[in-house]
Amino acid sequence: VIAAAAESGHGAAALLGTLAAVLVACKLAGEVAQRFKLPAVLGELVVGVVLGGSLLGLLDPGQPAIAALAEIGVVLLLFAIGLHTDIRLLRAVGGAATAVALTGVAIPFALGYWVASLLGVPPIPAIVCGAALTATSVGVSARVLSDLGRLGSTEGRIVLGAAVLDDIVGLIILAVVTRSVGGQAVSAAQIAGITAAAIGFVIVALFAGARTIPPTFRLAERVKADGAIGVFGVVLAFGLAWLADSAGSAIIIGAFAAGLVLHPLPQRNEIERTVTTLAYFFVPIFFASVGAAVDLGAMLSPTPLLIGGGLIVVGVVGKVAAGYAPWWFHGNKLLVGVAMVPRGEVGLIFAQMGLASGALTPALYGAVMLMVLATTLVTPPVLAVVAERERAAEEKAKEK
Amino acid sequence: VIAAAAESGHGAAALLGTLAAVLVACKLAGEVAQRFKLPAVLGELVVGVVLGGSLLGLLDPGQPAIAALAEIGVVLLLFAIGLHTDIRLLRAVGGAATAVALTGVAIPFALGYWVASLLGVPPIPAIVCGAALTATSVGVSARVLSDLGRLGSTEGRIVLGAAVLDDIVGLIILAVVTRSVGGQAVSAAQIAGITAAAIGFVIVALFAGARTIPPTFRLAERVKADGAIGVFGVVLAFGLAWLADSAGSAIIIGAFAAGLVLHPLPQRNEIERTVTTLAYFFVPIFFASVGAAVDLGAMLSPTPLLIGGGLIVVGVVGKVAAGYAPWWFHGNKLLVGVAMVPRGEVGLIFAQMGLASGALTPALYGAVMLMVLATTLVTPPVLAVVAERERAAEEKAKEK
Repeated sequence: VIAAAAESGHGAAALLGTLAAVLVACKLAGEVAQRFKLPAVLGELVVGVVLGGSLLGLLDPGQPAIAALAEIGVVLLLFAIGLHTDIRLLRAVGGAATAVALTGVAIPFALGYWVASLLGVPPIPAIVCGAALTATSVGVSARVLSDLGRLGSTEGRIVLGAAVLDDIVGLIILAVVTRSVGGQAVSAAQIAGITAAAIGFVIVALFAGARTIPPTFRLAERVKADGAIGVFGVVLAFGLAWLADSAGSAIIIGAFAAGLVLHPLPQRNEIERTVTTLAYFFVPIFFASVGAAVDLGAMLSPTPLLIGGGLIVVGVVGKVAAGYAPWWFHGNKLLVGVAMVPRGEVGLIFAQMGLASGALTPALYGAVMLMVLATTLVTPPVLAVVAERERAAEEKAKEK
Repeated sequence: VIAAAAESGHGAAALLGTLAAVLVACKLAGEVAQRFKLPAVLGELVVGVVLGGSLLGLLDPGQPAIAALAEIGVVLLLFAIGLHTDIRLLRAVGGAATAVALTGVAIPFALGYWVASLLGVPPIPAIVCGAALTATSVGVSARVLSDLGRLGSTEGRIVLGAAVLDDIVGLIILAVVTRSVGGQAVSAAQIAGITAAAIGFVIVALFAGARTIPPTFRLAERVKADGAIGVFGVVLAFGLAWLADSAGSAIIIGAFAAGLVLHPLPQRNEIERTVTTLAYFFVPIFFASVGAAVDLGAMLSPTPLLIGGGLIVVGVVGKVAAGYAPWWFHGNKLLVGVAMVPRGEVGLIFAQMGLASGALTPALYGAVMLMVLATTLVTPPVLAVVAERERAAEEKAKEK
C-alpha cells in the first residue's frame, strides 16, 4: 500500500508536470497561430503532435487521467458551441441556409465515401471518412468573416445558419456511425433506430428543456454560493451527456443539446463566463490529445497521403458546391461556399471518435487529420481574396 | 479494441454522470451549510460520505479519473490560499502572531501525539494525528470574524497572521511526515533533510520568484489569447507542484509557494478570477472524495470514537491555549484562541494525505475526520458568544 501510494503521489506530480507543459505550449502555439491569422486550435494540434508518441513522447492520450480531462474538454467545447447557437437564426435565413447545409452534408459525405472506397478503404471506415467531411467549423468561418467585416451580411448569416445546421446533422451522423461501429454488422432497422435516438434526443431535450429549465434556473438563482449558476450549467451539460449515452445516443449530442437549451436564458452570460474559463483549461488538453494520437509514421506513407489528398479535394469541392445550392439567392455564392470549407474542431472530434471507436486505423486517422488541417489552413487566405475581389468589382461598378 | 473503446465510451458517460451528481449535491449542501452559518466545505464533506462507499457507493475516490480531478482540486485550493496570503501581514503583527502560531503548532502536535500513543496508536500514525492537529483554517476563522465585524481588529489580524504561519509550518510538517512514511524507518538525519527540502523550497521559490516572475508575467501580457494570464498562473502552480515533488518536497508545498510568489503581482486579480472559477469545479470534487473515503463502519466503533474524542479535546485546548501565548498582548486572548480552533480544509488535506500514504488506517482516518468536523462545527457559535460577551462588557464599562 505504501509503495503504491508513494508511486501514485509521484504519478500525480508527473500528471501536473505534463499538464503544465501542455497548457503553456498550447497557449504559446495558439498565440503564434493567431499572429498568422490562423485559428488557435491549429497551434494546439501541432503541440500535441510534438509532445505525443511520434516525437517527444511526453503526452500519452491513452492515460486514464489525460483521457478523462480530454473527454471533459470535448463536452465543454460542444456545450459552449451549443450555448452560442441561436436556433432562431435558422429561421431568418432558413431556406438558403438549409439548402447550403443539406447539400454541404450530402455531397461531401457521398464523395468522401466514394473516394475512400475507390482507394481501397473498407465500408465502415469509408463511412467515417465521409462523415468527417460533413462538419463545418462555425468558429473559423465566423472569425474570418468577422475580420473581413462580412459577418452581418446576408452571406454571413447564411454561412452561420448553415454551419449550425451542419453541426446538428453532423453530430447525428457521428452518433449513428460510432454506435453502429460498436455493434459492427448493423441492419438498416438498427441504423434507423440510432438515428431516431439521436434526433429524438435533441428534440425531446429542446421541448422538455424549454418548459423545465428556465424555472429551475430561476430557482437556482436563490442559491447564494458563489459561481453556483455556472456550476449548474456545467452540471446540466454533464447530466445530459450521461443521459444521451444512456438513451442510446452520444455524449456530445447531450452536451450540445444542453447548450441549445440554455441559450435563451437570462443567466446565459454567467454560465458562459464559467464555461469559457473552464474551457481555457480543458479544451487545449483535448486538442493536444487529438494531435498526440497522430502516428506520424503511419500518416506519412503513400496510401494515407493519397487518401488524405483525395479527401481534401472532395472536401473542398463538395462544400464550395454547396454554396451554389440555393439557386434563388443572388448574393456572392462563392463566398458562402468557401466559408463552409474549414472543418476545424468539429472535424477533429469526428476523427478522434473514429479512432477511439476503432473504426479508423492510425493511417486513416492521419488522412482525416490532413484533411482537417488543409481545409482549415487554406480557408482564411482564400476567403480574403474572394471578399477582396467582390469589393473591387463593386467599386468598379460604382465608378461607371 | 472496439469492445474496449465502446466500454470506455460508457465509462466516460458514467464519469460525467458521477461528476454532475457530485457537483449539484455539493453546491446544494454547501448552500444549506452556509444558511446555518457553517462553512460550505462541511456540506461537501457530508455529500461525499453519502455518495461514497459506506452508503450509496456512487463515488469511488480511488478511481483514476476521480483521483486526478481531486488532486488538481487540492493543488488549486492551496494555490488559491497562497494567492490570498500576504506574507507582509506577518510583519505588522509579527511577534504576537508568531507566538500564537508556534504555540498553536507545538502544543496540539505534542498533545495529539501523546493522546494517540496513550490510546495504543503506533508512533508513525500518532505523528500524523498530531500533525493534523497543527492546521488552522484561515477560511473559517476569517469568515466568522468578518461576520462579527472583528476581522480588522488587532485580534483579527493576529489570527490571520498566525493562521498563515500555521499553514506554512503545517505544510512543512506534512511534507516531512508523508515523505518519512514513504520510507518507513527513518533516521533523524533523513528527517532533517526532508525538513530542509520543504523549508528550502519555499524560500528558494520566494526569492527566485520575486526576481523572475514579475518580468515573465509582464512579457506574458503581450499574449493576446483570451485567458492567457490566468492559464499561465495555473501553469506556474502545476509546474512548481511538480518541481517540489522532484526536489524531494510535496506537491502542495509547490502549489502554495506559487500562490505566495504571485500575490504581489498586478496581474493577481486576473489570475484569481481564473483560479476561483476552476476551483468551483475541482475543489468540491476533492472534498467530496475526502468524505467518500470515510469508512463509516470503521469510524463508528469504540476505539476510533475514543481516539477522535481525545483528539477533539487536545485540539481545542491546545489552540485556545495558544491564544494566551503572547503574554505582552492585552486584547481578547480568548477570542484569538477560539478563532484558531477550526481545522477546516487544511486539516482535511492532512487526513487525506495520511490515508493515501498508508500512514492512517481507515479507523484513524475516521478519528481525524471527526476532529476536523467537530472543531470546525463548534467554532462559529462559540466565537459569536465570546465576541458578544466582550461587547456586553464594553457597554457596561461605558455606562458606568
